Amino acid sequence: MKSCGIIVEYNPFHNGHQYHAKMAQELSQADVVIAVMSGNFLQRGEPAIIDKWTRAKEALSHGADLVVELPFAYAVQSADYFARGGIKLLHALECDSLCFGTDDRSEMDYQRFGAFVKDHQTEIDQQYQTIKNNGMSYPQQMTEVFRKIYPENGLNFSTPNHILGLSYAKENAHYDKPMVLYPLKREQAGYHDLKIHSRFASATAIRQAVFANELSGIRQVLPEQVSKDLEQAAIVSWENYWPLLKYKLISSSIEELQEIYQMKEGIEYRLKEAAKDADSFSVFIEKAKTKRYTWTRLQRLATYLLINVSQQEIEASWRHSHLHVLGFTEKGQQYLKEKKKTVSLPLITKVSKTLNDRLSLDIRSDQIYRLGNTAISEQNFGRSPIRLP
Amino acid sequence: MKSCGIIVEYNPFHNGHQYHAKMAQELSQADVVIAVMSGNFLQRGEPAIIDKWTRAKEALSHGADLVVELPFAYAVQSADYFARGGIKLLHALECDSLCFGTDDRSEMDYQRFGAFVKDHQTEIDQQYQTIKNNGMSYPQQMTEVFRKIYPENGLNFSTPNHILGLSYAKENAHYDKPMVLYPLKREQAGYHDLKIHSRFASATAIRQAVFANELSGIRQVLPEQVSKDLEQAAIVSWENYWPLLKYKLISSSIEELQEIYQMKEGIEYRLKEAAKDADSFSVFIEKAKTKRYTWTRLQRLATYLLINVSQQEIEASWRHSHLHVLGFTEKGQQYLKEKKKTVSLPLITKVSKTLNDRLSLDIRSDQIYRLGNTAISEQNFGRSPIRLP
Repeated sequence: MKSCGIIVEYNPFHNGHQYHAKMAQELSQADVVIAVMSGNFLQRGEPAIIDKWTRAKEALSHGADLVVELPFAYAVQSADYFARGGIKLLHALECDSLCFGTDDRSEMDYQRFGAFVKDHQTEIDQQYQTIKNNGMSYPQQMTEVFRKIYPENGLNFSTPNHILGLSYAKENAHYDKPMVLYPLKREQAGYHDLKIHSRFASATAIRQAVFANELSGIRQVLPEQVSKDLEQAAIVSWENYWPLLKYKLISSSIEELQEIYQMKEGIEYRLKEAAKDADSFSVFIEKAKTKRYTWTRLQRLATYLLINVSQQEIEASWRHSHLHVLGFTEKGQQYLKEKKKTVSLPLITKVSKTLNDRLSLDIRSDQIYRLGNTAISEQNFGRSPIRLP
Repeated sequence: MKSCGIIVEYNPFHNGHQYHAKMAQELSQADVVIAVMSGNFLQRGEPAIIDKWTRAKEALSHGADLVVELPFAYAVQSADYFARGGIKLLHALECDSLCFGTDDRSEMDYQRFGAFVKDHQTEIDQQYQTIKNNGMSYPQQMTEVFRKIYPENGLNFSTPNHILGLSYAKENAHYDKPMVLYPLKREQAGYHDLKIHSRFASATAIRQAVFANELSGIRQVLPEQVSKDLEQAAIVSWENYWPLLKYKLISSSIEELQEIYQMKEGIEYRLKEAAKDADSFSVFIEKAKTKRYTWTRLQRLATYLLINVSQQEIEASWRHSHLHVLGFTEKGQQYLKEKKKTVSLPLITKVSKTLNDRLSLDIRSDQIYRLGNTAISEQNFGRSPIRLP
């Protein structure tokens, strides 16, 4: 069976995502669409608005045939590591192609770009060394590096989806049998676009409407099932976890904070100070924000803190990757049967206590996720993959 | 000026406490009554129902002339360490006598008992060694030890206030100039008595009524001001901190839990497991309780956990004791003036940032105490002692 992968978050699932899954199948002519999806904590350092099982179910009813969880150690990361995890899991599943959205307006050849980076890594690193202290942001610096050594394409690293596309291409090129890449241009609704368009809207706009309790205005951009889930399922935002994060910052010593992954350069002092009088997560981040520490970077740090995760734990999780299957359609199940003897990472369809060590970070992050809303059910033990006809 | 000390918690302040302060003055004929009072966390491992400043103010209006805070490292402890701290602070303040409540019905001579223990410590330790593994509780074992080596008095270590009295006597005897001891028999309302008597009731019964929102039934056992405070001030119970404690237990590794003061013998596994499905503090303790780990012992452990306190930190706090003055009457202020050049511990009347290190444990415990109710105001920085005419 032929497969096409997509790397997703679905926070929440909307019509644009359904279009993406449908186009992945059409462009690749694959038999199954495999979604590697972030679990309960997301790339930008946020708790998912709805839990991973609900989002997996929505995905399976709207174009995906198999949903596999991207582990925490890859999911809550900047583009490069996020892409590394997604591509790794898809390769382990012997996926033939990858379809991803892009904000890029040019006709760039991602496959060729990936191969170029693979062959010129030393040159890129050298070029980066010459400008790394120029005060620009990392995306700006990368744009600069590639303008010099790869001028054929006017690369722009400043829109999130385009950066992800470039990261996918780079990662993919490192494998012996790279997947075929299908970039999909976003027709409407850019990443940060806050307006609700006719049938499409950005996930950001949708979340704002949900938290403002204005679901009626966004029904037309969501599948009916998702509207229902957003009304009935337990939803959370960072604010639900703010009391816990504040407690963590107040109760931990500076030395303990320094044990947290990515906590360096003295930001621990700044976070501890900002927590003292902040009575909401957004006030806290506004207080802590600097030019160097952007909202997203701080949110990721806040997530590492909330989950109490160390460098060693992230690295251990990278070493022990796995494929936690959240659900499948009949076709997806057939695909798994066909591949299960050759997949290159452990396939987990049921989390048992014996997996405690291998999955410790993921299990703990889900236990803490549940503290945000008492209505969130157990996320691992005793749960079988969702099976849709 | 002559002074009489009392060691108190006031959780909350009631008529029995007013009687105690009055009798302290009458029995000792002192000019000032000095109250050493637990701060925001108490001997039995609980958050105080009302914050330390409110309780200090109530004490000053009802018989105390000077209120000094018993540091966390002494306050949240079993009788021996609690007594050590209280006696240490009173001696530092050059107090002449000590008046304490007792449930004991005999006419025992506490002063003589203290001197006896001081002179026979080796014998007591040896006797204890022979029975320490007999399965009895520690109070029962102590009763047994003293029945053998000090039969003149039928000592009974099983009522909390009597145990405290014995501990005060033991500690006091170690000083060159011991204080004169005035035991005060409780006329009514034993420690654990749940009935509300005419004008007296136990603090336990009063707290139950407050949490059940039945203040009307207990007005006659409280000074008017306290009734008002219990209606208007921010009140808390362990349940307010349960989400934080649950988060702490879920997010910490076993190794991290083992760093907590008194966390040993594997109780960390039991607490982590009990936290998982408990949705309240009382359910949690009921689940974790064993014959060895009583409610009070578990509450103390829970407090150490909540405050994230290590053995080293407790010991550092013992080494750097201080006298944090919460308030005084005119007489109390006069007494301080008279003694301030000779007191043997640093006198703190205003907490400034320079005291951060010395007071770190106390400051942190107060910051965490404030997380239980947003209406609790800053507990240290910028606060001057309460001054009552």
